[in-house]
Amino acid sequence: MQKNAIILFSGGLDSTTCLAIAKSQGFVCYALSFSYGQKHQVEVEWAKKIAATSGVAEHKILNLPLDELGGSSLTDKQKKVDDHVANGSIPATYVPARNTIFLSFALAWGEVIGAVDIFIGANHIDYSGYPDCRPDYLQAFEQMAVLATKRGREGERFIIHAPLLQMNKADIIRAGVKLGVDYSQTLSCYRADAAGRACGSCDSCVYREKGFSEAGVDDPTIYVL
Amino acid sequence: MQKNAIILFSGGLDSTTCLAIAKSQGFVCYALSFSYGQKHQVEVEWAKKIAATSGVAEHKILNLPLDELGGSSLTDKQKKVDDHVANGSIPATYVPARNTIFLSFALAWGEVIGAVDIFIGANHIDYSGYPDCRPDYLQAFEQMAVLATKRGREGERFIIHAPLLQMNKADIIRAGVKLGVDYSQTLSCYRADAAGRACGSCDSCVYREKGFSEAGVDDPTIYVL
Repeated sequence: MQKNAIILFSGGLDSTTCLAIAKSQGFVCYALSFSYGQKHQVEVEWAKKIAATSGVAEHKILNLPLDELGGSSLTDKQKKVDDHVANGSIPATYVPARNTIFLSFALAWGEVIGAVDIFIGANHIDYSGYPDCRPDYLQAFEQMAVLATKRGREGERFIIHAPLLQMNKADIIRAGVKLGVDYSQTLSCYRADAAGRACGSCDSCVYREKGFSEAGVDDPTIYVL
Repeated sequence: MQKNAIILFSGGLDSTTCLAIAKSQGFVCYALSFSYGQKHQVEVEWAKKIAATSGVAEHKILNLPLDELGGSSLTDKQKKVDDHVANGSIPATYVPARNTIFLSFALAWGEVIGAVDIFIGANHIDYSGYPDCRPDYLQAFEQMAVLATKRGREGERFIIHAPLLQMNKADIIRAGVKLGVDYSQTLSCYRADAAGRACGSCDSCVYREKGFSEAGVDDPTIYVL
């Protein structure tokens, strides 16, 4: 029997590849997106389009008021989303506790629909240095999840799948291409305009561009300039 | 210098006592409430009134769409909130992953305002058997929190304070009375009416009533009948 899985799904390169991997592993996929006050909210529209043609069992979009807490240039209108700078520190685009919040909602939905498998497109090679994309964090969340839930207490084990964790962007793109992912449908830019055109110079764009280049795959991204 | 703390705050007996304890320990208190699609949403109005007279630095109320996930008689209009039954199983009022979601938002806000102390009124004596009120869960959340956050990665340690954890309801009430809590201002009932009158027979009411009785404190709750 096929098992249900929840896929955290932004419509970007990583989570779209992650969805394709979950499908290739035989999971019935429930995609979960968030409209969380991100300036690049247009990503949710792209996520909808991908989900509609990806054979997911359901695509749920939840509104979360992360912008009411602030603390990130992705949600705070007073802060500018900067160009990529490679200095090893956690950048201003970090959204406090975002993955913990997203995974917690996945846990809740998983309790309800009977999905103990949760996929997240986190990777920590070619990434922005966010604390909540690292392996030790994901392991700790998994341990907490078993104790947090009814299913966990009854003997089931929630598994946080992060199949991209040890892949660089080029690896991810190669894996996605093999699985038939159409990257022209994905949107990664933090500063995408209303039409979904990418800026080409934010953190997310820089890692994405580098990935296509290293993978030797034509970059289908439409840039503003 | 006084330290900031986030207090998960529903306006009920437990969280109001928890707020009083945090204040008595010298914390500058930031109260955090959620309108999460609970049928007894009137509790948020009560929380507002208590917060307004409790000297909190700020009271934030966030809207979360937990009712879109369902899975609980507290949020699902198709399900009835039952009378209390003492049978040891996790009751239908359990809201999947609720405390994990609430604590995750506290974590996010704590990152922003510089509060690594988070108070939650969880207790696991005289309680409904919810998995996410138990000591091992709270410890696991704390461990995860350090790895999830920028402050954690920078060497600070988030602390989940659950001062009521090992207290029964009578102990909680006695502690609150000593600290000057006015329990007539608190609302605990899962089936409270629009005026905030309690049903007297849901899980929450039964434990509360028993607590006042055992503590030898007059029960100021206004019941429907």
